Amino acid sequence: MLAQQLRTEGHDVLETAEPGGTPIGGQIRRVLLDSKNRELCPTAELLLMFASRAQNVDQYILPALAKGTVVLCDRFTDSSLVYQGIARGLGADVVYDVDRIACRGLVPDLTLVIDIDTETGLARARQRNDRTQDVETRLDEEGLSFHRKVREAYHQLSVDDSRRVKLIDGDRVPEEIAKDVRMQVDALVARK
Amino acid sequence: MLAQQLRTEGHDVLETAEPGGTPIGGQIRRVLLDSKNRELCPTAELLLMFASRAQNVDQYILPALAKGTVVLCDRFTDSSLVYQGIARGLGADVVYDVDRIACRGLVPDLTLVIDIDTETGLARARQRNDRTQDVETRLDEEGLSFHRKVREAYHQLSVDDSRRVKLIDGDRVPEEIAKDVRMQVDALVARK
Repeated sequence: MLAQQLRTEGHDVLETAEPGGTPIGGQIRRVLLDSKNRELCPTAELLLMFASRAQNVDQYILPALAKGTVVLCDRFTDSSLVYQGIARGLGADVVYDVDRIACRGLVPDLTLVIDIDTETGLARARQRNDRTQDVETRLDEEGLSFHRKVREAYHQLSVDDSRRVKLIDGDRVPEEIAKDVRMQVDALVARK
Repeated sequence: MLAQQLRTEGHDVLETAEPGGTPIGGQIRRVLLDSKNRELCPTAELLLMFASRAQNVDQYILPALAKGTVVLCDRFTDSSLVYQGIARGLGADVVYDVDRIACRGLVPDLTLVIDIDTETGLARARQRNDRTQDVETRLDEEGLSFHRKVREAYHQLSVDDSRRVKLIDGDRVPEEIAKDVRMQVDALVARK
């Protein structure tokens, strides 16, 4: 909805997502999320996430930013910090070390976390996976305690980096959520 | 041949290879070497190599070493240093930063470089790829100047780290090469 609004207002917008985004990122995504790859170790998981991200930064994101395009990316380094750094326990330093190499200093102006209680979020993900017969479910299949750590870490991040990382209440209809998203974007533009 | 000899002498031996080695590493190898993935950027290439390596270290190599098994690995971090660090120009520091995260301090006791002049080596690789109809040829398809940089970097490494990295003349029949390989292994054991 945000992308649509921005385009109507005359902006060029790149919508991208991770892991994935590029054709090579799509191949990496299948390795990362295939529900059969249960033995994937946390460090390999981290490096695959950033391999996909480095390719996206190099091939799509930096060229888009250079042309003045607005880039909307579904997940970025903040997700790696939360999932691999904190929930998997690799530590924030390791994540930032790899980020420095993969993203070359690129930090999102704004990270919006669509927040919802863990049980509801997992139930939604599982319904969606069943409906679409998705096999890219390895992370969704982690237990409740893993997903609780993920949520807590996002909350903590929104405190530690409160100007850049904003929680949005996700337990509402999409139109209401989109209104809050737009408000945060307008506030960012006003600050700049 | 070395693995066979060591097993005959009563050693447990793990033969592994990179990129690949593990089932997940095999999936990463296909992304890395698929001749269609020409747009893969150097940083993503580096991170994929180390994702495969981290999985191999975690799943096979560290458990094998803990049991006293001899590990023979076809390529390791020295290859990343040479290909991504030097021939691709990412720099040695970047390679060692990722190595520290992926390999947790693991350094091979001995790296043997089967050395051959660039033209002969490339001609062999291309004959083999044609014969086996291999599609994992992205790196073999790099030009002569890339492969010359790779060879020079291996030579330099064998000077800079001369106790650990040894050149073996590869322009001979396999049995002669295997004799030199065995000599280097015996010298390593004698030093320990």
